[in-house]
Parts: sequence; C-alpha cells; structure tokens
Amino acid sequence: MNRIPLPSLRRLPRYLNVLENLQRQGRTTVSATDVADELDLKPIQIRKDMAFTGIVGKPKVGYDINELIDAIRTFIGWHDVTPCVLVGSGSLGTALLGYEGFAKRNLKIVAAFDIDSERYGRIIYGTPVFSMDKLAEVIERDNISMAIITVPTHAAQDVTNSLIAVGIAGIWNFSPTEIQVPPHVVVKRENLSEGLAVLFVKMRERQFRSPD
Amino acid sequence: MNRIPLPSLRRLPRYLNVLENLQRQGRTTVSATDVADELDLKPIQIRKDMAFTGIVGKPKVGYDINELIDAIRTFIGWHDVTPCVLVGSGSLGTALLGYEGFAKRNLKIVAAFDIDSERYGRIIYGTPVFSMDKLAEVIERDNISMAIITVPTHAAQDVTNSLIAVGIAGIWNFSPTEIQVPPHVVVKRENLSEGLAVLFVKMRERQFRSPD
Repeated sequence: MNRIPLPSLRRLPRYLNVLENLQRQGRTTVSATDVADELDLKPIQIRKDMAFTGIVGKPKVGYDINELIDAIRTFIGWHDVTPCVLVGSGSLGTALLGYEGFAKRNLKIVAAFDIDSERYGRIIYGTPVFSMDKLAEVIERDNISMAIITVPTHAAQDVTNSLIAVGIAGIWNFSPTEIQVPPHVVVKRENLSEGLAVLFVKMRERQFRSPD
Repeated sequence: MNRIPLPSLRRLPRYLNVLENLQRQGRTTVSATDVADELDLKPIQIRKDMAFTGIVGKPKVGYDINELIDAIRTFIGWHDVTPCVLVGSGSLGTALLGYEGFAKRNLKIVAAFDIDSERYGRIIYGTPVFSMDKLAEVIERDNISMAIITVPTHAAQDVTNSLIAVGIAGIWNFSPTEIQVPPHVVVKRENLSEGLAVLFVKMRERQFRSPD
C-alpha cells in the first residue's frame, strides 16, 4: 500500500461530506470538478487524492457516487463499527459522548472512565461511566484498541500509561498537553489552542492586506 | 512582517505549553534543545519558529523564559482579551462555553446565540444565551470581530451569512460542514472527522509495519 500523504488524508473526510450531500440530493455520478468547486480546490488534486482509495473516475462520466463513498469509507476504516473508550467525563468528555457525528463514522464509545468516584455509575448520552479499575475488563471484553482522552493536563500521562498497559494502540488526545507513548502506539492530538492561534494570526494578516 | 508558515504557527502554542510548564517549575532560561526534547522535534526548527516572534536566543544561555512566553503570546494575539460570540448552544457549544483553556488564551465568549427559543435567557457556565435578533446589538456593543459556530450542518451557512452581515471577520467553524465566506473573512475549520481519519489510517499503517 502506498502511504497517503497527510494533507490528502485530511481532505478525504471533506470529500465524503460533499459526496454524501450530493447523494442525498439524488446524484448518482460526480466529477472531480464538482467536488473541487464545492471546496475551492483544484480537480487534479481531487483525482490524485481519490486514487489512494483505489477508485479512478471515467473520462466524461466521472465517478459513480455510491462507489466513491464506499471506497473512501473503506479506505479510512469507517465501514465497520470501531468500539472505543473515553477517559475523562468532564465537560469536553460529555460533549464528545453526545456528539452525533461519531455514529455517522461508525465510532462507538462503549464506555467512559473517570477518576472522580462521584461519577461512577452515571449514564451520559447512553454511555456508562466506570472507575479506572474496570479499564482492563472492558477493553478485553469488547476487544478495544482505541481510546479518547479528555482529562486535565496533570492526569494525562498517568491515564496514557494505564491505557497502554492494557493494550490500547491508538489515542485521540483532547487533553491540552503532550503525552509520551512507545513507538507502537499512535497519538492524534486535538489541541484547540492550535486552531485558535491559526485563526488569530490569519485575521491579523488579512487586516494588514485589506485596503483600510 | 514575514508571513509565518502554517506548520510553524501550529507549533507555537505547543511551545507555549512547554514553556509555561517550565516556568511554573521555576526555570528562568531555556534552550531550544530543552523545548525540542519535550516535543520530539529538532532544535533548529524551534529556533527558526521562535524567530518569527522577534525573539532570538543567546548562545550558551538560550532564551529568557518570561521574555519568550511574552513574545509568543503577543505574536499570536493572546496578550489582550479578545471578546467573541458563540452561535449554537447544543452539546458541543455548551462544552466550549465550559472550556477552561480559553481563559488562559484571553479568549472571552461574551454571549451565546441560538435559534431554539427554549434556550433564550439561559446562562451556560456564566454566559447568557440570546436569540439571533440580538446579534447585531451585542456585536456592536462589545466591538466583536470573531465568532464560534457550533450549529448543525443545515444551519451553518445561514448563521455564517448573519454573522458576516453584522461585521464578523473571523469564524471558528465547529459545524461539520464547509461554509462559504467573502474574501475578507477568515474561517478556521475544526472538523473532528479529519482527526479521526488520521488516527484510523495511522493505526492501520502502524500495524502493517510492526513485526506481528
């Protein structure tokens, strides 16, 4: 398998959103230009990115929309349900437990964990909250390899270590700190302050370039 | 002003987190190598990125940590309070209203707006929820140029248009859809499905490369 470059990989979910909208509107075929126009990108870029999923469009016809949606979902790994756990049931954790977009991508948070004993036994948007003692049991029971972390900075590394000890291979880190992991574990950081910094600096740059 | 490349800009908040931790531990100077080691980056990269803020380290001494923190905060625009509004007070909007990390970066959500009349008059984590009718009034009163959108897909473009009509110049878009804006408006997308796709594909790639 050719390794997909990160920018291409990041664009695939955006294509998927556009394609699913067009599908809902009853479209059966779509051209790279259609998708490019929606996202302000170049058609050649779309074609190159789509090729990583194994799908090539037909000249003058474009892509079969159902086939293309299937290919992207399968490539990313969104075709089957992926069970995962969430650690940290505070305000951000609660929001993620209630986030409807995950079901669309077949991500299922089967259990939440917390170190605050007051939260044990709660059900948040249908997901039960357990004490960290139950981690190994739940992860083995449901054959889970992925975890979401939404704990405060001071708890992030300890929680990470506990997750790795029970065999977690992928961590989606929403804690506002860096975590250290062994080479076989994948971490994806979601740091709100990065997005905020980009927005602030781009707003300032835009002002400097505008006429007044 | 030299335009800072996006990857460098994205790293600045990560440096800031590391520096603030070291500052709390009582450190007064720091070298590029110290920061590089924490983040698994190369010291030369740190030096180049830091230079965009106008700060250059001294050979054998490194950086004055307070000065460096100040320079990064000022460069990004986090030195003064930036007021903003949030539109969409559902579960994600509520989580952002309760997110403590924003105060640290001087971002203040002064008001939330919703189209659901049942939510008018509520106070969420200290922030009042208004009807969209009040948008122009609040934005003018507090001289606001930035908005956070956390509305569902179907409402995102209408809300965007309303925000632009009252003079918003920067939109932090947490809605799971693309929005169209005129050239003078900056949009920063936060799309959870992008992060999820990256995590899934990297986990799979890692498995293919590991011995068993």
